Amino acid sequence: MSETPVALIVLAAGQGSRMQSDLPKVLHRLGGVPLVGHALAAGRRLDPAQVIVVAGHGAESVSAAVAKLDPEAQIALQPEQLGTGHAVAQALPLIEGFEGRVIVLYGDTPFIGEDTLTALADHPADVIVLGFEAADPGRYGRLVTGPEGLERIVEYKDADEATRAIRLVNSGVLAADAALLRRFVAQLGNDNAAGEYYLTDVPGLARAAGHRVEVVTCDEAETLGINTRTELSEAEALFQTRARQRALEDGVTMSDPATVWFALDTVIGRDAIIGQNVVFGPGVTVESGAEILPFCHLEGCHVSSGATVGPFARLRPGAELGGDVHVGNFVEIKNSVLDEGVKVGHLTYLGDAEIGKATNIGAGTVTCNYDGVSKHRTRIGANAFIGSDTMLVAPVSVGARAMTGSGSVITMDVPDDALALGRAPQVNKPGLATRLMEALRLRKGKA
Amino acid sequence: MSETPVALIVLAAGQGSRMQSDLPKVLHRLGGVPLVGHALAAGRRLDPAQVIVVAGHGAESVSAAVAKLDPEAQIALQPEQLGTGHAVAQALPLIEGFEGRVIVLYGDTPFIGEDTLTALADHPADVIVLGFEAADPGRYGRLVTGPEGLERIVEYKDADEATRAIRLVNSGVLAADAALLRRFVAQLGNDNAAGEYYLTDVPGLARAAGHRVEVVTCDEAETLGINTRTELSEAEALFQTRARQRALEDGVTMSDPATVWFALDTVIGRDAIIGQNVVFGPGVTVESGAEILPFCHLEGCHVSSGATVGPFARLRPGAELGGDVHVGNFVEIKNSVLDEGVKVGHLTYLGDAEIGKATNIGAGTVTCNYDGVSKHRTRIGANAFIGSDTMLVAPVSVGARAMTGSGSVITMDVPDDALALGRAPQVNKPGLATRLMEALRLRKGKA
Amino acid sequence: MSETPVALIVLAAGQGSRMQSDLPKVLHRLGGVPLVGHALAAGRRLDPAQVIVVAGHGAESVSAAVAKLDPEAQIALQPEQLGTGHAVAQALPLIEGFEGRVIVLYGDTPFIGEDTLTALADHPADVIVLGFEAADPGRYGRLVTGPEGLERIVEYKDADEATRAIRLVNSGVLAADAALLRRFVAQLGNDNAAGEYYLTDVPGLARAAGHRVEVVTCDEAETLGINTRTELSEAEALFQTRARQRALEDGVTMSDPATVWFALDTVIGRDAIIGQNVVFGPGVTVESGAEILPFCHLEGCHVSSGATVGPFARLRPGAELGGDVHVGNFVEIKNSVLDEGVKVGHLTYLGDAEIGKATNIGAGTVTCNYDGVSKHRTRIGANAFIGSDTMLVAPVSVGARAMTGSGSVITMDVPDDALALGRAPQVNKPGLATRLMEALRLRKGKA
Repeated sequence: MSETPVALIVLAAGQGSRMQSDLPKVLHRLGGVPLVGHALAAGRRLDPAQVIVVAGHGAESVSAAVAKLDPEAQIALQPEQLGTGHAVAQALPLIEGFEGRVIVLYGDTPFIGEDTLTALADHPADVIVLGFEAADPGRYGRLVTGPEGLERIVEYKDADEATRAIRLVNSGVLAADAALLRRFVAQLGNDNAAGEYYLTDVPGLARAAGHRVEVVTCDEAETLGINTRTELSEAEALFQTRARQRALEDGVTMSDPATVWFALDTVIGRDAIIGQNVVFGPGVTVESGAEILPFCHLEGCHVSSGATVGPFARLRPGAELGGDVHVGNFVEIKNSVLDEGVKVGHLTYLGDAEIGKATNIGAGTVTCNYDGVSKHRTRIGANAFIGSDTMLVAPVSVGARAMTGSGSVITMDVPDDALALGRAPQVNKPGLATRLMEALRLRKGKA
Repeated sequence: MSETPVALIVLAAGQGSRMQSDLPKVLHRLGGVPLVGHALAAGRRLDPAQVIVVAGHGAESVSAAVAKLDPEAQIALQPEQLGTGHAVAQALPLIEGFEGRVIVLYGDTPFIGEDTLTALADHPADVIVLGFEAADPGRYGRLVTGPEGLERIVEYKDADEATRAIRLVNSGVLAADAALLRRFVAQLGNDNAAGEYYLTDVPGLARAAGHRVEVVTCDEAETLGINTRTELSEAEALFQTRARQRALEDGVTMSDPATVWFALDTVIGRDAIIGQNVVFGPGVTVESGAEILPFCHLEGCHVSSGATVGPFARLRPGAELGGDVHVGNFVEIKNSVLDEGVKVGHLTYLGDAEIGKATNIGAGTVTCNYDGVSKHRTRIGANAFIGSDTMLVAPVSVGARAMTGSGSVITMDVPDDALALGRAPQVNKPGLATRLMEALRLRKGKA
Repeated sequence: MSETPVALIVLAAGQGSRMQSDLPKVLHRLGGVPLVGHALAAGRRLDPAQVIVVAGHGAESVSAAVAKLDPEAQIALQPEQLGTGHAVAQALPLIEGFEGRVIVLYGDTPFIGEDTLTALADHPADVIVLGFEAADPGRYGRLVTGPEGLERIVEYKDADEATRAIRLVNSGVLAADAALLRRFVAQLGNDNAAGEYYLTDVPGLARAAGHRVEVVTCDEAETLGINTRTELSEAEALFQTRARQRALEDGVTMSDPATVWFALDTVIGRDAIIGQNVVFGPGVTVESGAEILPFCHLEGCHVSSGATVGPFARLRPGAELGGDVHVGNFVEIKNSVLDEGVKVGHLTYLGDAEIGKATNIGAGTVTCNYDGVSKHRTRIGANAFIGSDTMLVAPVSVGARAMTGSGSVITMDVPDDALALGRAPQVNKPGLATRLMEALRLRKGKA
């Protein structure tokens, strides 16, 4: 967290036409969340006073996504995209009364680090440009520095041989005193080939006005921007490699880390065991000592210590597994709380349910939570025994220590300690199977 | 497509003993289809007048596979493998009346490109040899060229130092005027160590007879042949890498392209979303805007725009999913048409079924399509509601807007708007669960 | 197998604090089995007279794991870890009467090869040190050799420039005549910085006493030790790469070898087909010509020739699949024997069952093998037809050629040729579905 009051402006208006997609670029997912969520999450760690996202292309869907990712963030609209300076200009009215440091970030630059942001927030200069030493400076703008800080930013096309030899280049990220930013953004012109307003011109204006302009540097990897699907999948690979390495260092046991996919907010405890081919969507915590077997898909759920999940299990949002719970194969849990020691071994769907301690759920059980119009809840007490293939027609409750006979359709509540049965009695018809099969074969032969 | 009339001969008679397999080499799969299918598919793009596959080892299974891959292709048998020239000789009677260009391809060389084939088809020379600049010419035959085209092909063992320095080498693929091919194949001798008839001798015979012999070149990668399982898995990796890259360029969203497996004919629309670990068998089309979640297996099916599939879903041949259909986890669909907006959320098997618009299929539903002898169809109307754990004993139909109670076994047709129930009433027996459990524990204690 | 009588001492007492784990290091899994299992399996191939595992940290769980991995191995306790010499000293009383060659191995060094162990067992010298040519000798102890064998082991910190240039280094593995080992281990001192007893001092003592001390060398890869989770996952990757390569060479067909995970003891026959994403736990054999489709999880099971499994199938310990058995999607089999030609196509749990030849098990079938207290068996005869959604409440048996109606709960035995039904008759209530749905919508509107 920074000591200076900070406001963030996140530029997220571009279409990203090179993505070959109708989805706005910043909504493409990385680590299970939209790209823009990464810059927002990094920025949030500074505890900023305000966060403004500038939306343009697909503004409606960008706004909706931002509202979920960071409910306190505000949206500024940039209906026409007239350059980065113009984008920032749309955001400034929303931070009119703000005094302090403004940092301008990019919604398609997901890897910027907390240390870098803190350095931008706390630096004593008036305007700070984030630069990096480029392995291949290519067509980046060069940062020409001298004893008094950043002297100028020279675009590649305007640079002479000596300037092109400079490897310190401009990331585009910029921090500035709020009042100065307002002043100089207002002064930006668009007298250039593209007719756009460039935020990059702010440092020059500030310096010309006698202000102190400096460079803060970061690793090139932090500035990685995403313009194509190939770049997105490279970024995803980088994100996953780091998440896997961090998990290994934290003491997570993974059979094959390359086949575990993390989301931005995945939390896994030490000595948790994660098998091959596990996908973590957003919002998952797995406690120390839990085990996720191969081929599992988890999202928005909590797995407590001692629990085992899978293989072939799906935990959907709202699945809360208590200690030592066992969820086996071909089982789906959604919006349900399973208390300690519950066992759901096979071929089951639990949705909108509460299951008491140590209750056993037989194979093929279904909570019939949807009646075609509304969803309803199922409540099962502790130490109950739900027989295989029990249909629990919600809303319904089954008491503690109660049992249901396998194959029963439970439409009425079952009291504690009761046995509920709904089953036609079995009748054996001697010889009939053989006769039936013969008849079927005959019919087929004739057909 | 070429302008010259073309006939293709695909050599596919070899055993491939280095594969360590009882399966004929050309039937090992690459991109979900037998190896020979790749050369056939590439050749088909020339719109050839005839396609002849020369089969030898495992001719019966090769013929059966070819019949499925390319029903118009003809089979020539080469019971004894006496060299490539001998193989072509077996095919020639089948194209006796053909006038035009004959191209000889190999069933174990899957990567040959359409441009290369077109160049072979359209080249004005009489005989054309496909060559390539080899990174490591090794033991390939060298192509010695001069102002009048291909002068001679020199086998490595016969080459002097200067000739060995040539990097332009023979791929084995050859194109020739049909009449000339017939004449020179008939002249081939087997006076060599192996006692075989070599197609490679045709260019020399043609040139000696005053015909024009030229070289067409291609990338070395196009000539990649497969002789071992390791080479096959390298070829598969290459095939998949290209397919993934092409999908990215086409605007397909993939969470981790390295875990999506394509077949030769997979078609995925722009902005379709494909999660981790999705296997496409042959014959799949996924429309733009559809989503396939992780851990899915699809084959011979169609997924329309707006549909979501998985995770953990299997679509088998004949599964046709309309717009906005939802197929959830642990669901299998086979030979069934699901109209727009159908929802099949969990733990269901639909086989040989037709489901009307917006119908909801409850968890645990099964179409009992097999009676032990024959398969039968299930028809469900629009806006129906199939309760969880409904058994639909086919042949059977359920009307529009009809419902089935959960746990029902439906053996008779259900009219439109009707509710069908087949369910024993629930009975609660107070205290019985507890007494039963005590008795079971006692019995176990005594045992 | 060696010709000399051999005893093995496997050192497995360390905590492995760099693993960031509460689990003793040697119990972390590699190739599906605890690390220590690899050294034990390699050593067993020498047919040793005795195997002693020295346990310390987590001795109880290490002992339990060893008892499962190698029931004949004995445990020596080393409650305090005072060095490798001290560890060996704890093991010696258990081989008091043994005459022959003792080999000291490490529980965290899983890749040591059989040839290397045989060389250590059969070497005529009195004491043999296992060394290797290190790519980067780093801080390893250098092996200084001369015409009379190993002259001395020089620790890196004590080595001069010339000695540091030696690339032949000490792996720590040592073999010695049993009587000599007893004598020199007893002479070890702990007059060093760590106050520990070093096995490494034995060769020096032996040589000083006039015994012949020699070096046997192996590949550096065989000596790979595991100290961190990153090293463990690199070792796992190495293990899998080798296992996959070996399977390819043995003629196994794999769609993508990089997504098949083998255990130490997996056995797969030639021309078996293994799809993408298959996990083999310990104890699996798959016969030649069987097919495992993608997304399968197998452990402790046998799959016979001609059988097909998956996709999305789980075979648990005790699953025995006869020839031509078909196990389809979302099917779990545990502790069950399926005779030739049994078909279990979809959404089924078979536990503690015996199924006769050619029997067909319908979708959604469950063997209700657990009554809340005990497990019971289900027996089904040959050529039976189990209807979809049949609950088989064990203990129960179904005769040969018998059928069960779909949706039946079978609690009584079914005779041969009989049809068993337990099903409430279907009732259609005209118009009721539509009225019900209207009522539900009304209620929701009011709510």
